[in-house]
Amino acid sequence: MAHFEVSDIVRALHGVRDEWRDSQRRSREPGAREFPSRDALTQIVESLKGALFPMRLGPPDLRHESEDFYVGHTLDAALQALLVQARLELNFNARHEPRPASEIDDTATEAVRRFANALPGLRRLLDSDVLAAYQGDPAARSVDEVLLCYPGVLAMIHHRLAHELYKLGLPLLARIVAELAHAQTGIDIHPGAQIDAGFFIDHGTGVVIGETAVIGKRVRLYQAVTLGAKRFPTDTEGNLQKGLPRHPVVEDDVVIYAGATILGRVTLGKGAVIGGNVWITDDVPPGASVTQASLQNAPKTGGAA
Amino acid sequence: MAHFEVSDIVRALHGVRDEWRDSQRRSREPGAREFPSRDALTQIVESLKGALFPMRLGPPDLRHESEDFYVGHTLDAALQALLVQARLELNFNARHEPRPASEIDDTATEAVRRFANALPGLRRLLDSDVLAAYQGDPAARSVDEVLLCYPGVLAMIHHRLAHELYKLGLPLLARIVAELAHAQTGIDIHPGAQIDAGFFIDHGTGVVIGETAVIGKRVRLYQAVTLGAKRFPTDTEGNLQKGLPRHPVVEDDVVIYAGATILGRVTLGKGAVIGGNVWITDDVPPGASVTQASLQNAPKTGGAA
Amino acid sequence: MAHFEVSDIVRALHGVRDEWRDSQRRSREPGAREFPSRDALTQIVESLKGALFPMRLGPPDLRHESEDFYVGHTLDAALQALLVQARLELNFNARHEPRPASEIDDTATEAVRRFANALPGLRRLLDSDVLAAYQGDPAARSVDEVLLCYPGVLAMIHHRLAHELYKLGLPLLARIVAELAHAQTGIDIHPGAQIDAGFFIDHGTGVVIGETAVIGKRVRLYQAVTLGAKRFPTDTEGNLQKGLPRHPVVEDDVVIYAGATILGRVTLGKGAVIGGNVWITDDVPPGASVTQASLQNAPKTGGAA
Amino acid sequence: MAHFEVSDIVRALHGVRDEWRDSQRRSREPGAREFPSRDALTQIVESLKGALFPMRLGPPDLRHESEDFYVGHTLDAALQALLVQARLELNFNARHEPRPASEIDDTATEAVRRFANALPGLRRLLDSDVLAAYQGDPAARSVDEVLLCYPGVLAMIHHRLAHELYKLGLPLLARIVAELAHAQTGIDIHPGAQIDAGFFIDHGTGVVIGETAVIGKRVRLYQAVTLGAKRFPTDTEGNLQKGLPRHPVVEDDVVIYAGATILGRVTLGKGAVIGGNVWITDDVPPGASVTQASLQNAPKTGGAA
Amino acid sequence: MAHFEVSDIVRALHGVRDEWRDSQRRSREPGAREFPSRDALTQIVESLKGALFPMRLGPPDLRHESEDFYVGHTLDAALQALLVQARLELNFNARHEPRPASEIDDTATEAVRRFANALPGLRRLLDSDVLAAYQGDPAARSVDEVLLCYPGVLAMIHHRLAHELYKLGLPLLARIVAELAHAQTGIDIHPGAQIDAGFFIDHGTGVVIGETAVIGKRVRLYQAVTLGAKRFPTDTEGNLQKGLPRHPVVEDDVVIYAGATILGRVTLGKGAVIGGNVWITDDVPPGASVTQASLQNAPKTGGAA
Amino acid sequence: MAHFEVSDIVRALHGVRDEWRDSQRRSREPGAREFPSRDALTQIVESLKGALFPMRLGPPDLRHESEDFYVGHTLDAALQALLVQARLELNFNARHEPRPASEIDDTATEAVRRFANALPGLRRLLDSDVLAAYQGDPAARSVDEVLLCYPGVLAMIHHRLAHELYKLGLPLLARIVAELAHAQTGIDIHPGAQIDAGFFIDHGTGVVIGETAVIGKRVRLYQAVTLGAKRFPTDTEGNLQKGLPRHPVVEDDVVIYAGATILGRVTLGKGAVIGGNVWITDDVPPGASVTQASLQNAPKTGGAA
Repeated sequence: MAHFEVSDIVRALHGVRDEWRDSQRRSREPGAREFPSRDALTQIVESLKGALFPMRLGPPDLRHESEDFYVGHTLDAALQALLVQARLELNFNARHEPRPASEIDDTATEAVRRFANALPGLRRLLDSDVLAAYQGDPAARSVDEVLLCYPGVLAMIHHRLAHELYKLGLPLLARIVAELAHAQTGIDIHPGAQIDAGFFIDHGTGVVIGETAVIGKRVRLYQAVTLGAKRFPTDTEGNLQKGLPRHPVVEDDVVIYAGATILGRVTLGKGAVIGGNVWITDDVPPGASVTQASLQNAPKTGGAA
Repeated sequence: MAHFEVSDIVRALHGVRDEWRDSQRRSREPGAREFPSRDALTQIVESLKGALFPMRLGPPDLRHESEDFYVGHTLDAALQALLVQARLELNFNARHEPRPASEIDDTATEAVRRFANALPGLRRLLDSDVLAAYQGDPAARSVDEVLLCYPGVLAMIHHRLAHELYKLGLPLLARIVAELAHAQTGIDIHPGAQIDAGFFIDHGTGVVIGETAVIGKRVRLYQAVTLGAKRFPTDTEGNLQKGLPRHPVVEDDVVIYAGATILGRVTLGKGAVIGGNVWITDDVPPGASVTQASLQNAPKTGGAA
Repeated sequence: MAHFEVSDIVRALHGVRDEWRDSQRRSREPGAREFPSRDALTQIVESLKGALFPMRLGPPDLRHESEDFYVGHTLDAALQALLVQARLELNFNARHEPRPASEIDDTATEAVRRFANALPGLRRLLDSDVLAAYQGDPAARSVDEVLLCYPGVLAMIHHRLAHELYKLGLPLLARIVAELAHAQTGIDIHPGAQIDAGFFIDHGTGVVIGETAVIGKRVRLYQAVTLGAKRFPTDTEGNLQKGLPRHPVVEDDVVIYAGATILGRVTLGKGAVIGGNVWITDDVPPGASVTQASLQNAPKTGGAA
Repeated sequence: MAHFEVSDIVRALHGVRDEWRDSQRRSREPGAREFPSRDALTQIVESLKGALFPMRLGPPDLRHESEDFYVGHTLDAALQALLVQARLELNFNARHEPRPASEIDDTATEAVRRFANALPGLRRLLDSDVLAAYQGDPAARSVDEVLLCYPGVLAMIHHRLAHELYKLGLPLLARIVAELAHAQTGIDIHPGAQIDAGFFIDHGTGVVIGETAVIGKRVRLYQAVTLGAKRFPTDTEGNLQKGLPRHPVVEDDVVIYAGATILGRVTLGKGAVIGGNVWITDDVPPGASVTQASLQNAPKTGGAA
Repeated sequence: MAHFEVSDIVRALHGVRDEWRDSQRRSREPGAREFPSRDALTQIVESLKGALFPMRLGPPDLRHESEDFYVGHTLDAALQALLVQARLELNFNARHEPRPASEIDDTATEAVRRFANALPGLRRLLDSDVLAAYQGDPAARSVDEVLLCYPGVLAMIHHRLAHELYKLGLPLLARIVAELAHAQTGIDIHPGAQIDAGFFIDHGTGVVIGETAVIGKRVRLYQAVTLGAKRFPTDTEGNLQKGLPRHPVVEDDVVIYAGATILGRVTLGKGAVIGGNVWITDDVPPGASVTQASLQNAPKTGGAA
Repeated sequence: MAHFEVSDIVRALHGVRDEWRDSQRRSREPGAREFPSRDALTQIVESLKGALFPMRLGPPDLRHESEDFYVGHTLDAALQALLVQARLELNFNARHEPRPASEIDDTATEAVRRFANALPGLRRLLDSDVLAAYQGDPAARSVDEVLLCYPGVLAMIHHRLAHELYKLGLPLLARIVAELAHAQTGIDIHPGAQIDAGFFIDHGTGVVIGETAVIGKRVRLYQAVTLGAKRFPTDTEGNLQKGLPRHPVVEDDVVIYAGATILGRVTLGKGAVIGGNVWITDDVPPGASVTQASLQNAPKTGGAA
């Protein structure tokens, strides 16, 4: 077998790591990895999906009469595991301004407690999403098929969990949960996006929804729709201003067809219909119907440019 | 360790499940899950891929001289497993109008038998797809590379299996098989789509092909192409009419470049070339070449709008 | 249980395989599979990621003070495994013109040795990519989050490894490594593409970068951007000409927004900004800003058509 | 790689199987394996151990407050799995005189129901065994150590479960459960043996306890003790008479030291002490102390020969 | 977390390994492990057990009609894997006197070929062992129970495979196969022992059978029986003489009860019955019955001391 | 499917657990399991075996030149994992008299540190055991075979690790390590036993060595040998006196043949040979040879009774 200069490469890699850590002002003290784990969150989300939909996403040998047993056991384990990850995120955040361990513990525990209490409400919202998908797609044969097969529904299960974590001050855990869905579905929803009941994304690949987007009830989206930012707002000195509303507001009952791009803090009014591939950077009035043709033929139709 | 109100949440989740089941008129009788399993189908498809291409997608320790042993054993196990899933789908469908178990058994067995007999034909079709990819991509170095690496080929293996299940009255199993490929490739082909030999999708991410699409021989597609429905046809009372042809017909030797959107029951004539990002809702005559430019400059060129 | 005609189907499949092998002029001699393995490369890349970023992508129980032990052990095992795969590719390539085994061994060993020696440099490049992502996305909270969560970073880790293999004469291994990232991220970068430091792809789904693309420093891309070929160059007899430069050159500091399509050997000049969804087949001068509006309203603006 | 005559050997093995099946009058009809599975029972026993001792033999992440959730879920799954195995045993038994499937179902269900109801009693008995081990071994530091570490306790958990199955008409399942412990501990207790509370086997390797043995309360045994049959009783025509009592009766508070062999339906009286390596084929009176020396020196001491 | 002097210990362990390798005159050249693997043989034996008894020890989903497919595929893979291990053993043996690789290959291939051809005969012998166990134990309910549950049968499956390897010049592989059974059953049969058809070991824990033992047809043994060597024969210079017959010859139809110890090259004549715990170092005539009592009371009974 | 009264049984099992916990004065407070884990120790021992013998018991892909990398990484992870288990044992011990967490941490860290530093010495001792086995068994072909195959060597690896833990105040961890070997080999060595270099147990099944046994250099034992206690010493009030020397002292170069039983604090003098199955409760002088015959024929030979 061949022999490689492994020791030399190890040393060189060590050197590059040192450069990086110095440039990032990281300590080189001994110690273990202190960062949330993608694998751990994969497992936690899997358990939460089972606890939310035990007879469909739980173990195949589950039976109605022992659903609660399963839900209770699974939930307890998932919450304890989530607590560990929450502590890791809070600890990591405190690397520049250390906080007492007990304080971090209390914050983490409170966040997970609230998260847990929000689960029944999330299940109700997800039921509305499943129904919306079932009613919105003529090809759907049952709500069960929708729950098991539709990538848009999978993305929403992850998003509703991630958004809850985001609101509770755990944006990194939220991000990991969102990316797990992104990898599987090609749907990229920022955990900060606010999405009301009955939301449905069909096909889904290439959809991007930004952090400050606000979406009303019964909205329907197709593949490759972008709800993005037009420009990053800067202050008078040219610095990026974080947290400013910069993504669209989509009101109730809007439908957005495939490939449409909506950029900036514009409002798509209640019931508006946005055609495929259109490019929108201004408000659209309620009930309006915007298509490529309408844009090209009628440049003066106000709201839609 | 922290303590959460698990029992309360279990009770609340139980309540939400009851609401849902009542709203869906589901029984709450004791019993086990009776629904096809995504994991089971993942395993079945994996086995079928091995049985179809034993020396490339079968086990790494396989040898030519025992190919048939492997194929026979794997196939038998896969078909038995598929039979179990077929029964689950048929049983689920019969939840509103129960059928005798023996009748369901017979239907399931007959469907799987036909599926099994179709496999050699599917392998031949897939060989034509592999060849098409090899010939259509100047970067391809061997048919083996194409089979192992190209997401478009993976999508077609799944689609040809799924389409067979769809034709045999197992649309839910078909859908699960299709979604497994969608998750891995970003290519979303409805199991109902009819696709003839020598089909090739390059890159693939974002491709969507609808249920009633009909695709001829030697057709080539690039990423983000949509063969979609323009409008859901409704009857005189406004109800959705299911099953009506509503997606494009693509004749032999057509090429469709990236991002093109073809909507409705239009026909792309034999040998037509559709440029990138164009938006088509009318027929395109055989041999025509349609580009964004041609659309904007020549609004009167009939077929292509 | 049902009985299927497994023996008949095995025989029929055998027949189709024979047809295929005859048509491909493959031998039917006994022997084992001699082709690189996707599973093996998955494992190798996983190990290399750990060796490159031990405290973030290595095992969760790793500690600073034994990083080098881990890196050394993991690297050695990964390189030996890579050597096996390299031999398989070289052997496969030599199927038409056999080379002595020892010669193949030497070539494989030399390639893996060079690959190994390139790793510290790759780590430095990847650090620049991580920094670019961190600085380019206002939502990023830490470089660690970027490394763990961003699909664009995952795609670049795979690409930089794959590009090295490509340069060392192992294009099939390179392709497999690239497709592993494509499947997870929806980002399709051909291993041949040359990409300089500080490259960042945001969101990423649907991005396609072709084989002869050349990308400068600090370039930023959004989802669904295509850097493709306009036409496959052919020689005077109409044969495809392989290896000719046919994809864009993107100079330093260019930004390309979502959905833009750049086709052919055009150059996007230093610092150019390409707007969303635009379609470009001509050069763009340095510093230019191209948008859909500018294209429609100002057809005469030279560089951008 | 080498080539072996696999097809010939397959054919020869087929021939030997046919011979065997003919000699055993087994049918060669198509069909699946219909026999209980060692792997399935391994899993079932593992689950039952967790349900009986959740905080010690259950999952490491279990917490007191969700013990009941875990126990309920685990128990339900284990009982359903046991029901499947029970049906397999009953079906197998009925291979010579077929019974209606529904009757077999009813019998299996009733047996598993009784088994389930017996579990709390078994836990109480096992607690007495754990206590006996703790009190009987001066080296034991806690009851928890005893439960986790002592092979004699593991053997008793299996035995008490197996004995219950044996009494309920499932001797094959019982046997499998017993052999699983035998393989791990070297302790071979026939499922038919009746053993009262507070039983302790120290070290254990080589202990054999026969089918009709009857053991009282608080009995203690050391390694390599045999409670065996002297002779297989035959009827007047020389046929083996099954089920006749042929193993020892051991009364309360007896201690039997390592290597002692007690054969036949003899009685070791209450509180007797049997020394190491002695060989006993006659009754031993209550309170007697039998050693090798006493046997050799005092052949007349009645009960002990 | 705590910090240990790992680097120091690594260095010290390195030193001890060097001492050992020097004392053993092992080279310290770079290179990989070249020694048969216990894990590999575990897997090989598992496969061979399935190939020998497909419907009982093969996969649970196997069906009669595809037995041969399974057997052929499994056998082929197992034989190829065994060939790798055989080469490792032969290479290791040649470490002091190197042989050309091709010669080792030929030897290994020939050995595995013979091993493969012996399998049908081994299956027939094992059938006789299963029958013997079924007939010899009044508690046995079916031959299937015997095959699945009896440790003595498991030990014989391993032994008959191991003995074949031993005869074919692969004593190390044979030894590993034997030890795998020893660990599971407590039965220690040296691969060299020659054992004829219809052999049955009941209970089995503690049985030891030496390398040159010769056992006839229909012999029955109970737990803790030793067929050992009395003394290691030495030549005139006091060196151990390897390979000399030094263990008992047991003729047809002999029964040996638990704990009996037979030492040296003595012969137990046809049909002899050896009682429990007796100690024998002389021949026993055919048909004799030897018990502890007979030994103590009748020291003059010739053969049995 | 059948329905069982799972809720009732859960309640009943809860009741039995409460009884037990009350009887054991255990709290019922919420909280997690706080007890060392058999699975964790299995993994730790596996790692330590790899670190001690990297090229034989480490990963199959290991190569000489990266041994130290592997040893360092494996050792670090194993020691950290051991530290967790050590804390669990110390915490559990402190359940009746709580100690500050930091004090327990310090004690655990110190113990693991010493354990780590002892490893090179243990490796040297184990090398002497391997050599002793190789020299003591005429059937052994290489030291490598001995290390991989001999259960007696496996038992000694576990014992030497366990004894170190025992000396460092972690008797429960030690016990678990010992029982892991007991289950695999049938050899039961109490972690407290002191065993000098060059120890060899052949065959091994049924060997029992007690807590206060002291064994010299180059001692050899065969299967089923017991070095046990004759009687548990009690004080004047009849309480068991723990820790008193109560097992044999075996001096250098003693050989003890199969089945011999040595009980009590007796001394087997240097070079003594103890025959098979003998029963000894008195001292044996140096160089003496004791057999069953000598015992029966010569009751007056002092030391050996």
